[in-house]
Amino acid sequence: MKILLITGMPGSGKEELLNVARSMDIPFLRMGDIVREFHETSGAAAKGLSVGQVANGEREKHGKDIWAKRAIERMSGDIFLVDGCRSLDEVNSYKGLSDEVYIIAVHASRLTRYNRLIKRGRDDAPKDMAEFDERDNRELGWGLGSVIALADYMIVNDSDLETFQSKVRSEMEALR
Amino acid sequence: MKILLITGMPGSGKEELLNVARSMDIPFLRMGDIVREFHETSGAAAKGLSVGQVANGEREKHGKDIWAKRAIERMSGDIFLVDGCRSLDEVNSYKGLSDEVYIIAVHASRLTRYNRLIKRGRDDAPKDMAEFDERDNRELGWGLGSVIALADYMIVNDSDLETFQSKVRSEMEALR
Repeated sequence: MKILLITGMPGSGKEELLNVARSMDIPFLRMGDIVREFHETSGAAAKGLSVGQVANGEREKHGKDIWAKRAIERMSGDIFLVDGCRSLDEVNSYKGLSDEVYIIAVHASRLTRYNRLIKRGRDDAPKDMAEFDERDNRELGWGLGSVIALADYMIVNDSDLETFQSKVRSEMEALR
Repeated sequence: MKILLITGMPGSGKEELLNVARSMDIPFLRMGDIVREFHETSGAAAKGLSVGQVANGEREKHGKDIWAKRAIERMSGDIFLVDGCRSLDEVNSYKGLSDEVYIIAVHASRLTRYNRLIKRGRDDAPKDMAEFDERDNRELGWGLGSVIALADYMIVNDSDLETFQSKVRSEMEALR
Protein backbone atom coordinates (compact mmCIF):
# COMPACT_ATOMS: atom_id res chain seq x y z
CA MET A 1 0.00 0.00 0.00
CA LYS A 2 1.35 3.42 -0.97
CA ILE A 3 1.10 5.95 1.84
CA LEU A 4 1.26 9.53 0.60
CA LEU A 5 2.04 12.09 3.27
CA ILE A 6 0.67 15.50 2.29
CA THR A 7 2.59 18.50 3.53
CA GLY A 8 2.80 22.22 2.90
CA MET A 9 2.76 25.58 4.62
CA PRO A 10 -0.57 27.14 5.73
CA GLY A 11 -2.52 28.36 2.70
CA SER A 12 -0.40 26.44 0.18
CA GLY A 13 -3.37 24.40 -1.08
CA LYS A 14 -3.41 21.12 0.87
CA GLU A 15 -7.21 21.23 1.18
CA GLU A 16 -7.59 21.62 -2.58
CA LEU A 17 -5.29 18.66 -3.13
CA LEU A 18 -7.47 16.57 -0.79
CA ASN A 19 -10.58 17.70 -2.69
CA VAL A 20 -9.08 16.43 -5.93
CA ALA A 21 -8.11 13.13 -4.25
CA ARG A 22 -11.66 12.78 -2.92
CA SER A 23 -13.09 13.33 -6.41
CA MET A 24 -10.79 10.50 -7.59
CA ASP A 25 -11.98 8.19 -4.77
CA ILE A 26 -8.53 8.10 -3.18
CA PRO A 27 -9.08 7.65 0.56
CA PHE A 28 -7.46 9.93 3.10
CA LEU A 29 -7.32 10.60 6.80
CA ARG A 30 -6.18 13.51 8.90
CA MET A 31 -3.73 12.88 11.72
CA GLY A 32 -5.53 15.56 13.70
CA ASP A 33 -8.87 13.75 13.44
CA ILE A 34 -7.41 10.56 14.88
CA VAL A 35 -5.95 12.43 17.83
CA ARG A 36 -9.13 14.45 18.40
CA GLU A 37 -11.29 11.33 18.23
CA PHE A 38 -9.10 9.59 20.79
CA HIS A 39 -9.22 12.71 22.93
CA GLU A 40 -13.02 12.50 22.98
CA THR A 41 -13.53 8.75 23.30
CA SER A 42 -10.74 7.98 25.80
CA GLY A 43 -12.27 10.22 28.43
CA ALA A 44 -9.29 12.59 28.29
CA ALA A 45 -11.52 15.49 27.24
CA ALA A 46 -13.80 14.84 30.22
CA LYS A 47 -10.73 14.93 32.49
CA GLY A 48 -9.93 18.39 31.16
CA LEU A 49 -6.79 17.38 29.20
CA SER A 50 -6.04 19.25 25.99
CA VAL A 51 -5.67 17.54 22.60
CA GLY A 52 -1.97 18.40 22.61
CA GLN A 53 -1.46 16.88 26.06
CA VAL A 54 -3.17 13.67 24.97
CA ALA A 55 -1.10 13.50 21.77
CA ASN A 56 2.15 13.87 23.69
CA GLY A 57 1.03 11.62 26.55
CA GLU A 58 0.28 8.77 24.16
CA ARG A 59 3.66 9.24 22.46
CA GLU A 60 5.41 9.01 25.80
CA LYS A 61 3.41 5.93 26.79
CA HIS A 62 3.53 3.97 23.51
CA GLY A 63 6.42 5.43 21.50
CA LYS A 64 6.87 8.30 19.06
CA ASP A 65 5.21 6.40 16.23
CA ILE A 66 1.97 5.61 18.07
CA TRP A 67 -0.18 7.95 15.97
CA ALA A 68 1.27 6.64 12.71
CA LYS A 69 0.54 3.09 13.93
CA ARG A 70 -3.05 3.96 14.77
CA ALA A 71 -3.44 5.70 11.43
CA ILE A 72 -2.11 2.70 9.49
CA GLU A 73 -4.54 0.39 11.31
CA ARG A 74 -7.35 2.28 9.63
CA MET A 75 -5.93 2.12 6.13
CA SER A 76 -6.79 -0.36 3.40
CA GLY A 77 -6.46 -0.53 -0.37
CA ASP A 78 -3.52 0.31 -2.64
CA ILE A 79 -3.10 3.98 -1.89
CA PHE A 80 -3.84 6.20 1.10
CA LEU A 81 -3.34 9.90 1.72
CA VAL A 82 -2.40 11.29 5.12
CA ASP A 83 -2.81 14.96 5.91
CA GLY A 84 -1.08 16.73 8.77
CA CYS A 85 2.54 15.50 8.77
CA ARG A 86 4.60 18.31 10.21
CA SER A 87 7.91 16.81 11.33
CA LEU A 88 10.53 14.34 10.13
CA ASP A 89 9.83 12.31 13.28
CA GLU A 90 6.33 11.66 11.96
CA VAL A 91 7.60 10.90 8.47
CA ASN A 92 10.13 8.46 9.92
CA SER A 93 7.39 6.81 11.99
CA TYR A 94 5.56 5.98 8.77
CA LYS A 95 8.76 4.93 7.01
CA GLY A 96 9.51 2.56 9.86
CA LEU A 97 6.10 0.91 9.39
CA SER A 98 5.85 0.75 5.60
CA ASP A 99 8.20 0.54 2.60
CA GLU A 100 6.06 2.71 0.36
CA VAL A 101 5.91 6.10 2.00
CA TYR A 102 6.12 9.23 -0.13
CA ILE A 103 6.02 12.89 0.82
CA ILE A 104 3.95 15.14 -1.43
CA ALA A 105 4.50 18.84 -0.79
CA VAL A 106 2.36 21.69 -2.02
CA HIS A 107 4.17 25.00 -2.39
CA ALA A 108 3.11 28.60 -2.87
CA SER A 109 4.94 31.82 -2.03
CA ARG A 110 4.41 33.55 1.31
CA LEU A 111 2.45 36.40 -0.29
CA THR A 112 0.22 34.06 -2.29
CA ARG A 113 -0.51 32.01 0.82
CA TYR A 114 -1.28 35.08 2.89
CA ASN A 115 -3.71 36.44 0.31
CA ARG A 116 -5.41 33.05 0.06
CA LEU A 117 -5.93 32.73 3.80
CA ILE A 118 -7.38 36.23 3.95
CA LYS A 119 -9.68 35.51 1.00
CA ARG A 120 -10.73 32.12 2.43
CA GLY A 121 -11.72 33.92 5.62
CA ARG A 122 -11.94 30.86 7.86
CA ASP A 123 -12.14 31.32 11.62
CA ASP A 124 -8.39 30.82 11.88
CA ALA A 125 -7.51 33.32 9.11
CA PRO A 126 -4.66 35.63 10.18
CA LYS A 127 -5.67 39.17 11.08
CA ASP A 128 -2.45 40.59 9.61
CA MET A 129 0.94 39.66 8.17
CA ALA A 130 2.53 39.52 11.63
CA GLU A 131 0.04 36.90 12.82
CA PHE A 132 0.53 35.00 9.56
CA ASP A 133 4.32 34.98 9.98
CA GLU A 134 3.90 33.86 13.58
CA ARG A 135 1.91 30.82 12.48
CA ASP A 136 4.46 30.08 9.72
CA ASN A 137 7.27 30.23 12.27
CA ARG A 138 5.41 27.99 14.72
CA GLU A 139 4.94 25.33 12.06
CA LEU A 140 8.54 25.71 10.84
CA GLY A 141 9.62 25.28 14.46
CA TRP A 142 8.07 21.79 14.46
CA GLY A 143 10.28 20.89 11.50
CA LEU A 144 7.75 21.41 8.71
CA GLY A 145 10.45 22.98 6.50
CA SER A 146 12.53 19.80 6.61
CA VAL A 147 9.53 17.68 5.55
CA ILE A 148 8.92 20.04 2.61
CA ALA A 149 12.63 20.06 1.64
CA LEU A 150 12.66 16.25 1.54
CA ALA A 151 9.45 15.91 -0.48
CA ASP A 152 9.40 13.18 -3.12
CA TYR A 153 6.91 15.22 -5.15
CA MET A 154 6.65 19.01 -5.12
CA ILE A 155 3.49 20.50 -6.60
CA VAL A 156 3.74 24.25 -7.13
CA ASN A 157 0.43 26.06 -6.63
CA ASP A 158 1.19 29.61 -7.71
CA SER A 159 -1.28 30.26 -10.50
CA ASP A 160 -5.01 29.49 -10.76
CA LEU A 161 -7.03 26.70 -9.15
CA GLU A 162 -7.70 24.83 -12.41
CA THR A 163 -3.99 24.56 -13.19
CA PHE A 164 -3.30 23.25 -9.71
CA GLN A 165 -6.15 20.74 -9.82
CA SER A 166 -4.91 19.41 -13.13
CA LYS A 167 -1.33 19.09 -11.79
CA VAL A 168 -2.61 17.20 -8.74
CA ARG A 169 -4.79 14.93 -10.87
CA SER A 170 -1.93 13.92 -13.15
CA GLU A 171 0.43 13.38 -10.18
CA MET A 172 -2.17 11.18 -8.46
CA GLU A 173 -2.89 9.22 -11.65
CA ALA A 174 0.82 8.51 -12.02
CA LEU A 175 1.08 7.41 -8.40
CA ARG A 176 -1.82 5.01 -8.21
CA MET B 1 18.28 46.27 -6.92
CA LYS B 2 16.64 42.85 -6.76
CA ILE B 3 18.58 40.38 -4.65
CA LEU B 4 17.73 36.77 -5.44
CA LEU B 5 18.79 34.27 -2.80
CA ILE B 6 19.29 30.85 -4.33
CA THR B 7 18.56 27.88 -2.11
CA GLY B 8 18.03 24.15 -2.38
CA MET B 9 19.17 20.82 -0.96
CA PRO B 10 22.48 19.26 -2.10
CA GLY B 11 22.15 17.99 -5.66
CA SER B 12 18.92 19.86 -6.37
CA GLY B 13 20.45 21.83 -9.25
CA LYS B 14 21.66 25.16 -7.84
CA GLU B 15 24.86 25.02 -9.92
CA GLU B 16 22.86 24.53 -13.11
CA LEU B 17 20.69 27.51 -12.19
CA LEU B 18 23.82 29.62 -11.75
CA ASN B 19 25.13 28.43 -15.14
CA VAL B 20 21.91 29.64 -16.78
CA ALA B 21 22.16 32.97 -14.94
CA ARG B 22 25.78 33.34 -16.10
CA SER B 23 24.74 32.70 -19.70
CA MET B 24 22.19 35.52 -19.29
CA ASP B 25 24.84 37.89 -17.85
CA ILE B 26 23.10 38.04 -14.47
CA PRO B 27 25.84 38.57 -11.88
CA PHE B 28 26.14 36.36 -8.83
CA LEU B 29 28.30 35.78 -5.81
CA ARG B 30 28.73 32.95 -3.37
CA MET B 31 28.53 33.67 0.33
CA GLY B 32 31.19 31.01 0.86
CA ASP B 33 33.66 32.80 -1.45
CA ILE B 34 33.36 36.04 0.51
CA VAL B 35 34.02 34.26 3.78
CA ARG B 36 36.91 32.21 2.32
CA GLU B 37 38.48 35.32 0.78
CA PHE B 38 38.30 37.15 4.10
CA HIS B 39 39.76 34.07 5.79
CA GLU B 40 42.79 34.28 3.49
CA THR B 41 43.34 38.04 3.34
CA SER B 42 42.67 38.89 7.01
CA GLY B 43 45.48 36.69 8.19
CA ALA B 44 43.09 34.34 9.98
CA ALA B 45 44.22 31.41 7.84
CA ALA B 46 47.85 32.13 8.77
CA LYS B 47 46.83 32.11 12.46
CA GLY B 48 45.39 28.61 11.96
CA LEU B 49 41.72 29.60 12.34
CA SER B 50 39.17 27.64 10.30
CA VAL B 51 36.78 29.27 7.83
CA GLY B 52 33.86 28.45 10.15
CA GLN B 53 35.60 30.04 13.13
CA VAL B 54 36.24 33.21 11.14
CA ALA B 55 32.63 33.32 9.89
CA ASN B 56 31.26 33.03 13.42
CA GLY B 57 33.86 35.33 14.93
CA GLU B 58 32.97 38.12 12.51
CA ARG B 59 29.24 37.63 13.26
CA GLU B 60 29.93 37.95 16.98
CA LYS B 61 32.09 41.04 16.45
CA HIS B 62 29.96 42.92 13.89
CA GLY B 63 26.47 41.43 14.11
CA LYS B 64 24.63 38.50 12.54
CA ASP B 65 24.18 40.32 9.22
CA ILE B 66 27.87 41.13 8.68
CA TRP B 67 28.30 38.72 5.74
CA ALA B 68 25.14 39.97 4.04
CA LYS B 69 26.42 43.54 4.47
CA ARG B 70 29.79 42.66 2.95
CA ALA B 71 28.05 40.82 0.10
CA ILE B 72 25.79 43.79 -0.67
CA GLU B 73 28.78 46.15 -0.79
CA ARG B 74 30.00 44.19 -3.81
CA MET B 75 26.72 44.27 -5.69
CA SER B 76 25.71 46.67 -8.44
CA GLY B 77 23.13 46.74 -11.20
CA ASP B 78 19.43 45.87 -11.18
CA ILE B 79 19.59 42.23 -10.23
CA PHE B 80 22.02 40.07 -8.28
CA LEU B 81 22.05 36.39 -7.37
CA VAL B 82 23.41 35.09 -4.09
CA ASP B 83 24.24 31.44 -3.63
CA GLY B 84 24.67 29.76 -0.28
CA CYS B 85 21.82 31.01 1.92
CA ARG B 86 21.10 28.24 4.39
CA SER B 87 19.16 29.81 7.27
CA LEU B 88 16.33 32.26 7.87
CA ASP B 89 18.80 34.37 9.88
CA GLU B 90 20.74 34.96 6.67
CA VAL B 91 17.58 35.64 4.68
CA ASN B 92 16.46 38.13 7.32
CA SER B 93 19.87 39.82 7.25
CA TYR B 94 19.33 40.55 3.56
CA LYS B 95 15.71 41.59 4.11
CA GLY B 96 16.85 44.05 6.76
CA LEU B 97 19.25 45.64 4.27
CA SER B 98 17.10 45.71 1.11
CA ASP B 99 13.41 45.86 0.18
CA GLU B 100 13.73 43.63 -2.84
CA VAL B 101 14.89 40.27 -1.57
CA TYR B 102 13.44 37.09 -3.03
CA ILE B 103 14.13 33.45 -2.25
CA ILE B 104 14.42 31.13 -5.25
CA ALA B 105 14.39 27.45 -4.32
CA VAL B 106 15.36 24.56 -6.54
CA HIS B 107 13.73 21.25 -5.64
CA ALA B 108 14.31 17.64 -6.57
CA SER B 109 13.41 14.46 -4.70
CA ARG B 110 15.87 12.81 -2.36
CA LEU B 111 16.46 9.91 -4.76
CA THR B 112 16.97 12.18 -7.77
CA ARG B 113 19.44 14.30 -5.82
CA TYR B 114 21.36 11.27 -4.59
CA ASN B 115 21.69 9.84 -8.09
CA ARG B 116 22.86 13.20 -9.41
CA LEU B 117 25.56 13.60 -6.78
CA ILE B 118 26.83 10.09 -7.50
CA LYS B 119 26.81 10.75 -11.24
CA ARG B 120 28.48 14.15 -10.85
CA GLY B 121 31.24 12.44 -8.88
CA ARG B 122 32.76 15.54 -7.35
CA ASP B 123 35.23 15.19 -4.49
CA ASP B 124 32.44 15.72 -1.98
CA ALA B 125 30.08 13.14 -3.55
CA PRO B 126 28.51 10.87 -0.91
CA LYS B 127 29.90 7.34 -0.75
CA ASP B 128 26.46 5.92 0.12
CA MET B 129 22.90 6.83 1.04
CA ALA B 130 23.76 7.06 4.74
CA GLU B 131 26.44 9.69 4.08
CA PHE B 132 24.04 11.52 1.77
CA ASP B 133 21.30 11.58 4.44
CA GLU B 134 23.83 12.79 6.99
CA ARG B 135 24.70 15.78 4.82
CA ASP B 136 20.99 16.47 4.21
CA ASN B 137 20.35 16.41 7.95
CA ARG B 138 23.30 18.68 8.67
CA GLU B 139 22.02 21.28 6.23
CA LEU B 140 18.43 20.91 7.49
CA GLY B 141 19.81 21.42 11.00
CA TRP B 142 21.00 24.89 9.95
CA GLY B 143 17.42 25.75 8.97
CA LEU B 144 17.71 25.15 5.22
CA GLY B 145 14.23 23.55 5.18
CA SER B 146 12.64 26.74 6.48
CA VAL B 147 14.33 28.80 3.75
CA ILE B 148 13.03 26.38 1.11
CA ALA B 149 9.51 26.36 2.63
CA LEU B 150 9.38 30.17 2.48
CA ALA B 151 10.66 30.44 -1.10
CA ASP B 152 9.06 33.10 -3.29
CA TYR B 153 9.79 30.98 -6.36
CA MET B 154 10.05 27.20 -6.41
CA ILE B 155 11.63 25.64 -9.48
CA VAL B 156 11.14 21.89 -9.65
CA ASN B 157 14.07 20.06 -11.24
CA ASP B 158 12.83 16.50 -11.55
CA SER B 159 13.08 15.76 -15.25
CA ASP B 160 15.86 16.50 -17.77
CA LEU B 161 18.40 19.30 -17.82
CA GLU B 162 16.91 21.09 -20.85
CA THR B 163 13.50 21.37 -19.17
CA PHE B 164 15.10 22.77 -16.03
CA GLN B 165 17.25 25.26 -17.94
CA SER B 166 14.22 26.52 -19.82
CA LYS B 167 12.22 26.90 -16.56
CA VAL B 168 15.10 28.85 -15.00
CA ARG B 169 15.49 31.05 -18.06
CA SER B 170 11.82 32.04 -18.14
CA GLU B 171 11.78 32.66 -14.36
CA MET B 172 14.88 34.87 -14.66
CA GLU B 173 13.47 36.76 -17.66
CA ALA B 174 10.30 37.49 -15.67
CA LEU B 175 12.32 38.68 -12.69
CA ARG B 176 14.71 41.06 -14.41
